[in-house]
Parts: sequence; structure tokens; C-alpha cells
Amino acid sequence: MIVLSSPKGWTGSKFVDGLQIEGTFRAHQVPLQIDDDHPGHLELLEERLKSYRPEELFDERGRLLEELAELAPVGERRMGANPHANGGLLLKDLVMPDFRKHAVEVPAPGTVKAADTYVLGEFFRDVAKLNRKQRNFRIFGPDETLSNRLNAVFEVTNRQWDARTQDNDAFLDSDGRVMEMLSEHQYEGWLEGYLLTGRHGLFNSYEAFIHIIDSMFNQHAKWLKVTSGIPWRKKIASLNYLLASHVWQQAHNGFTHQDPGFIDHVVNKKASIVRVYLPPDANCLLAVWDHCLRSRHYVNVVIAGKYKAPQWLSMDEAVKHCTAGIGKWHWASNDGDAEPDVVMACCGDVPTLETLAAVSILREHLPELKVRVVNVVDLMKLQPASEHPHGLSDEHFDALFTRDKPIIFAFHGYPSLVHQLTYRRANHDNLHVRGYKEEGTITTTFDMTVLNELDRYHLVMDTIDRLPQTGDNGARLKQQLTDKLQEHFVYIRKYGLDMPEILNWKWIN
Amino acid sequence: MIVLSSPKGWTGSKFVDGLQIEGTFRAHQVPLQIDDDHPGHLELLEERLKSYRPEELFDERGRLLEELAELAPVGERRMGANPHANGGLLLKDLVMPDFRKHAVEVPAPGTVKAADTYVLGEFFRDVAKLNRKQRNFRIFGPDETLSNRLNAVFEVTNRQWDARTQDNDAFLDSDGRVMEMLSEHQYEGWLEGYLLTGRHGLFNSYEAFIHIIDSMFNQHAKWLKVTSGIPWRKKIASLNYLLASHVWQQAHNGFTHQDPGFIDHVVNKKASIVRVYLPPDANCLLAVWDHCLRSRHYVNVVIAGKYKAPQWLSMDEAVKHCTAGIGKWHWASNDGDAEPDVVMACCGDVPTLETLAAVSILREHLPELKVRVVNVVDLMKLQPASEHPHGLSDEHFDALFTRDKPIIFAFHGYPSLVHQLTYRRANHDNLHVRGYKEEGTITTTFDMTVLNELDRYHLVMDTIDRLPQTGDNGARLKQQLTDKLQEHFVYIRKYGLDMPEILNWKWIN
Repeated sequence: MIVLSSPKGWTGSKFVDGLQIEGTFRAHQVPLQIDDDHPGHLELLEERLKSYRPEELFDERGRLLEELAELAPVGERRMGANPHANGGLLLKDLVMPDFRKHAVEVPAPGTVKAADTYVLGEFFRDVAKLNRKQRNFRIFGPDETLSNRLNAVFEVTNRQWDARTQDNDAFLDSDGRVMEMLSEHQYEGWLEGYLLTGRHGLFNSYEAFIHIIDSMFNQHAKWLKVTSGIPWRKKIASLNYLLASHVWQQAHNGFTHQDPGFIDHVVNKKASIVRVYLPPDANCLLAVWDHCLRSRHYVNVVIAGKYKAPQWLSMDEAVKHCTAGIGKWHWASNDGDAEPDVVMACCGDVPTLETLAAVSILREHLPELKVRVVNVVDLMKLQPASEHPHGLSDEHFDALFTRDKPIIFAFHGYPSLVHQLTYRRANHDNLHVRGYKEEGTITTTFDMTVLNELDRYHLVMDTIDRLPQTGDNGARLKQQLTDKLQEHFVYIRKYGLDMPEILNWKWIN
Repeated sequence: MIVLSSPKGWTGSKFVDGLQIEGTFRAHQVPLQIDDDHPGHLELLEERLKSYRPEELFDERGRLLEELAELAPVGERRMGANPHANGGLLLKDLVMPDFRKHAVEVPAPGTVKAADTYVLGEFFRDVAKLNRKQRNFRIFGPDETLSNRLNAVFEVTNRQWDARTQDNDAFLDSDGRVMEMLSEHQYEGWLEGYLLTGRHGLFNSYEAFIHIIDSMFNQHAKWLKVTSGIPWRKKIASLNYLLASHVWQQAHNGFTHQDPGFIDHVVNKKASIVRVYLPPDANCLLAVWDHCLRSRHYVNVVIAGKYKAPQWLSMDEAVKHCTAGIGKWHWASNDGDAEPDVVMACCGDVPTLETLAAVSILREHLPELKVRVVNVVDLMKLQPASEHPHGLSDEHFDALFTRDKPIIFAFHGYPSLVHQLTYRRANHDNLHVRGYKEEGTITTTFDMTVLNELDRYHLVMDTIDRLPQTGDNGARLKQQLTDKLQEHFVYIRKYGLDMPEILNWKWIN
């Protein structure tokens, strides 16, 4: 290695207006202003340019001398033509396992439980295995491969580690495909470089802490936008984020670990680049990742749960649902082919669970109510088609959400994001969104939803408030649920656990 | 200094389920799960707790032995009672100069020009001078004190610098009140520590790069929210951000330096904590900062211009306008006391300039049109009063923006933020927002607004589109402006400067 230490602004102007430029901090800005306010600067510029002795470099016709031109490298050796600087040229498709083989068996909605990211880990394991020879797939994450439950990956590979090892070290290897170090900055930078040079990968992070690389994400998204319009630039693999250990799963970490706002940050970037997915269960998560790992030149943000939770869709249903990106769940709705009284929409794993639990309460206590359940996997479906390539047409949106019925929307993130995406929709005035509103502490999983009024009881109460036709029955149910919330308050303080009826709740088909 | 290197999980369980815990990475998580799935763990816990030999520490009644209790410090020496850990106890008000003395003389709107942050620098200089003895005010910023034009500060203080100096170093001093180093992380951390221990300060940054500390801001905002509810915690000085060199002033830096989204990130935090200001001129900027430096326990984000630009309000007018936070500019409106045909709203220095230039075009070409100009300094005025303590009542909002007339809103940041804040307002359906939409490059200042359709010509065309009554005259004007945009396109490519009619435009009173 040769280290060259050169003066800042070397070969630039030595002094300007009596101040030293070359070799000082002043060389950082614009050392020579060429305008009416700076007479004499044009002469300084001429002097400086002549100091390079152009008469020795160019012939009389102004052409670079041939013997000098020959010094420059040719073909791919030219800096601008190096294929490693145009990674799409080197990009090889990943050898993809069949994600359907990893499907969780779901005989009927809600009948089995699984930990979504654990299932995904088995899929990633196979991706790592199948691409071992190609050596073009890596998982990057600050100490979170196990914490986000991608354990299975370590069955076939290890953490890349080139230094000494000690007793008790686990999963370290000089040729591992998992990169771990407690620095989000390091990972974002490494992953971007890995993608830009024609490889594939993903960033596996705690949801709240991905904000650490907000600014780095910005630059990569801007780069993708600009290079999309440059014909000689080949597309590269997408920048994929897996955000687990999310805001609703921070039981023992608490308020500091709760921030679902990375997607708010992401959607400010160009719609042609950004994609956001919130799969409600493991089969949807698999279908989404199969797509993300095959996609090009996007930023894909996927938010997923890591704890055991009810599974809703069979693999066939999941593939259909994720391909559509949004849809009515007929098995959870009782509006038949008619207009519903209310649309219960949900986006994210925990909001989906709470919505279905709310629907089961409505079914029991207000069975005459026609409820439609709509689940959103692909968040950008909510935006108008004019704003985002994934956006639903107004006709399609209105068909799902109606033009005039109340919508109770349980959302994974900050509620304002849903309003931001849907304010142009016909039925926006009837849209009522629940989500994270910066209320949280170290408490039970269910209590987190209660603190933010995203829980099943609040969702039912919201519904009753917007449906005066529920009358006395509605008022009675509302009172029961208010009492239930009080019971919950007392119970978790006494036992440190959620009430059995919460822990043991099951969807009845 | 004593450095103690201890095993991770020292004095915890040595082995659990056959795996070493103490001294290994495993001590980081929950080493002992006490539940039905882990029989034997309760015994391990008991064994571990007994290893501390409680019988030597407590008497028969379970009280800590007196000679041990006496070892602990008392009063303010207790860690939890150390006043430096409850900085509000130590907080002394800043000695404040009269900001009115720094006023720019504005005989009539638009008649003089000034560089807003340069004027602010003179105010900060006096704050630094007046609090020199108290030693409780610092300006933090990554190499941007001069770049953001706070030059005057260096008349009375320097950059804090404890290492060796060299020839050509400028403004370095072992007792400077300005902290500079090219690390936003360092500054955010230092400033937070400075505030938490009872001092005052501000973070002076390029707008786009403040995203670097998004995650750190999160934690401070959460801390402010939680401690607001703890009675023994005294309030501390606000965390103040000055974001200059903003998205519309990146002529020679370009697309990488354009991101007005920090405020989108900020407004997701608790409304009781966050405040966002976009003063349209120097006098407003002074009035806002006088407030910010006196305020407690907030996060104040202030966005300001650094280049010479027209000044609109006298100091008396600025104080009234900033106290209200939002208001009709009567001198720029021609709707008298009647309902206008259109509301031209603006928020931010460049959008205000473009809006006024658009109004002057409308006045000349469509003089019969009744135009109301509304300027927003305090962004949170837009939100309903139920959502933010600064939010306007619906009555007040409707009186300003009407309930049914088109609103053409020129906004400094991403347009969706204005929709997010106003979607509940009666006239939201008529609100048309222009702002930054991720279009930019290294170009002229005016061209940046053209690329994002925030310029005077687009604002006039937007107005005509929403006012069919402008008829043939409107259509003709629209065609003229389309031609004008084409002229602009050609002119800047030829001369590298904006057209003279842009550079020399003046508001005519």
C-alpha cells in the first residue's frame, strides 16, 4: 500500500486576496470567485491553468499528445468503465429455492401458530446454501440474526470473522455469509457496496434502530432514482430491509425501542424506487421475500413479527393475497356480496390479530352487523395510482373500502402515514386510523396495543361510535369493553401477564 | 483513571443448561428463563442469589446492616440525586439581548434585502457575549458556523480547540463557545449532554444532513416526553435546531444535499414536545429564536435561508406575525374584508418569495381576481387544536383558509406533510400543495423551484386551473407562462444564471 499525503487544494491557487489557499482549509470551498465583484480573479485563474503548461500537453490543434493519451488505460480498465462500478453488469440472478416448500400448513385461518421470521430464516438458509458457490448473497445485521429469529441460517453458514476466536464464540467462520457487528452504519455501507458491485443481500435490523441509517438510505435511494434514467447503467439488486423486533414486540425493552417511522421516511423518496410490505403471517412473509430477492433497483422495506402468532393464510392464499397486495378476507367478513356496514382494515401482523379479535367480538355481540375485513400487505396500494406504480385505481379502492361507510383502520405505524397516503380517496373522510402514538413502556404485548388504543376492545368501541344503528346493544357492549379494559389494567399489574382470554384467544371459523 | 475490565455477566450464573454464561456473549440476553418450560431454573436463581451471602448483609429482620448502609453517599452525592443528572436544577436563564436591536429596517415589504442567518448570527454573537461569565451557552455544528453564515459569532468567541494549532488556522481557542467537527453524531451527543446538565445551546446544521441524527433525536424526544410527567424532574432548556443551507439553496451541491424531511420525522413525536418554525425573513427569524432560547423542554426546529433575499416585515409586524404563528398578509392581499377567490398560502422563505411573485403576476394579468395571502411561520398551527397545543381552532382555520375556496399552498418541504397536518380541516379537499418532490440537481436557485413546480409560474398556472372564471384571460396567461418556462429552460443553459426578470424581480407596493 502506498499512502500519499498531499496538501489540501494541491496545484490550486497558492494565495488569493492575500490569504493562503493551497494547503489550508480555505481550499475546501470556492477559492476563486469569477464575477464582477472579484476583479483580478480571472487573471489568477489564467495563471493557475497556465501553470499546468498546456503547451507541453497538447499539440497546435489542441489535441492531447498521442504519447500521453496512450498512458491512459483502455476498455474495462478505464475507471468509468470498470464493471465493478456498474455492478448490474456483473449481477447474476440468485439461485432461488421454492419458497412454497417452507409453507406453514394452515388448514383453516388461525388454527396454528408460528413465528414468522423463524420460518423466513429457513428460507434464507436455503438461499444461502444454494448460492454458496456463486458467493453472491449475504445477510447483514447488527447482532440481530438470532434476536430477529433467523436462527436456521446458522445451520449452513456462519458469521464472517477474520480475527482470533475464543472459547464460547459461536457461529464464527472466516468464510461466513452473515455479517454481524453492532453498527448499523457499517452494515448499511457494506451492504450498499455489496449491491453496487453486483451482489445480493439484505439488512436485518430492529425496527426502531434502522433510523440510524436514515441519511445513508437517502443517498442510496437518490442514487437509484438518478441511475434509473442513465441508459448505460445496468440495474442492480434491490436494497432489502427486514425490520423485525418491531414496535409491538418490545416487551422487555420498552419505549426507547419503539419507533415504526422508518417507513414514513422512506415514502418521501421517489415512488418509482420505494416499496413497503407488512405481511400479516409467515406464508405472506415468504411470498414477499421471494419477490424482494428477485427484484431490481428498488428499496424494499419488510416489517415482520418474530414471536409465535396465529397464521391466517395457506400458501396458495398467501401468494394470491401478496400478488394483489391488498384484499378482502372473505373468511373473516360477513357482508357477502353486499355493501358492509363497516370496513375493518388492517396492516401489519399485530394490527391484523387485533382486528380479527375485534371482528370476533362484533360477531358475538352484534351479529346483525355486516363487517368487511380488508388486509393490506403492500402499503403503497393505498396511494392513488397517479402517485405510485403500485397504487390502486380509485375504482378498485372504492370497491374495497366503499365510498361512504366507516373504515376502522388498524395500522402498524404512525396513523398519520395512512392519512398521508389516502387523503385523495373518496371515502377518506370516513377513515379512522389507529396506530402507534408514542405511548409505550416495558409492559405486556397486549398492553402495548391498549396504551395506543389499537387493541380489539378499542377497535370495537371505535366501530360502535361510528355506527349509531348499533343503538342500545352497542352502548351495552361498549360499557362491557370499558370494564374489560379496567380488568386488564388490574390483571397485568397483579400477574405481569396478559389475561388468559387474551393469551388463549382463537379465531372461530 | 482506573480501568476495570470485568467478565460480561460477572457474578451472574456461571453455567445454565450446560452452556457457559458468565464471561460470554450469552450474558447479554435473558440467561435464566423462569417459567414452566424451564424446570430447574428457579433453583439456579436461588443458588445465584444465595451466592451473594445475604446472611452477611442483612439482619434477621431483613434490614441492610447499618455499617453497610453507612457506606452509601448521602444527599446530592447519591447518584440519583446528583443535580447534574437533573439539569433543570442547575439551569440559569440566559441573559438575553434585545433581539429588536438587530432588526432589519424594512420601510415597506420587499424594499430591502438581507441574508436571514447572517442577521441571526449577530444576535447569537450578543447572546454569546452576554453569557460569557455564566458560561452556559454554546453553538454546536459540524463545520457550518460560517457556511450557514453565522460569521458574526466569531467577533466575540472562537471554536473550542484544545490541541496544537498551525499557521492558517482560524478562530481556534482553548476557550471558545463554538463547537465544530465534521460529525453530526458528536454534536448531537455533546449538545444533549450540555442541555441535560443544565446549560443552553443550539445545533446548527445543513438541513439535509440532520437526518444523520434522526435516531438520537428520537431518544431525546422520548426522554423529554417521559420526564415531563415526573414531578421531581425539573425542566431543561429546549433542544434547538437551526437548519440552514436548505433544500432550495443547494446550487453548487445538488441532489445529494436536498432533503427537507427532518420535520416529517420530528412531527411523529409527541405534540407536547415538538415545535417547527419556518420564518419567512430575518425579523421573523430573530423573533422565533428569542422564543426558542427562552423556552423549556421542547425540541424546536427552525429552518432559515442564508442568501440575500427580500425582507417582508418590519420588526413590529414580525413580532405580531410570529406570536400568532400564522396570518393573512393584508399588504399582499386584495380581498379586503370579503371572501377571496383563492388563498395563496406559503411556508418557508423561498416558497414565500415565489408566492408573492405569483401574486404580482396575478395582479398584473388578472386584476379582478381577489387573492388572499396567508403565511405560516409556526407549522403546527396547521394541525387541529385537538392534536397539537399550537393547533388553530377549526373556526380560526376556516376564517383564514375559507371553507370552500381553492388554496394554493407553497411549502418548503414534502407536500404530503401539509396534507398530513390538515386532512381534518373543512377545506382540505380544495388544498393544493406544492413542495419538494425529489427533483433536483446542480442548477440555479430558481430552476430548483421550477423542477419541483413550486415556482411563481407554476403557482399562477395552478391557480388558473382551479378558477374556471378566469376564462380566456386565464388561458392566455397560462400559455404565456408556459412559454416563459421554456425561455427559462433555454436561458439558464446558455448563461448559467437565472433570467434577469427573476433576479431583479421586486414586490411593488
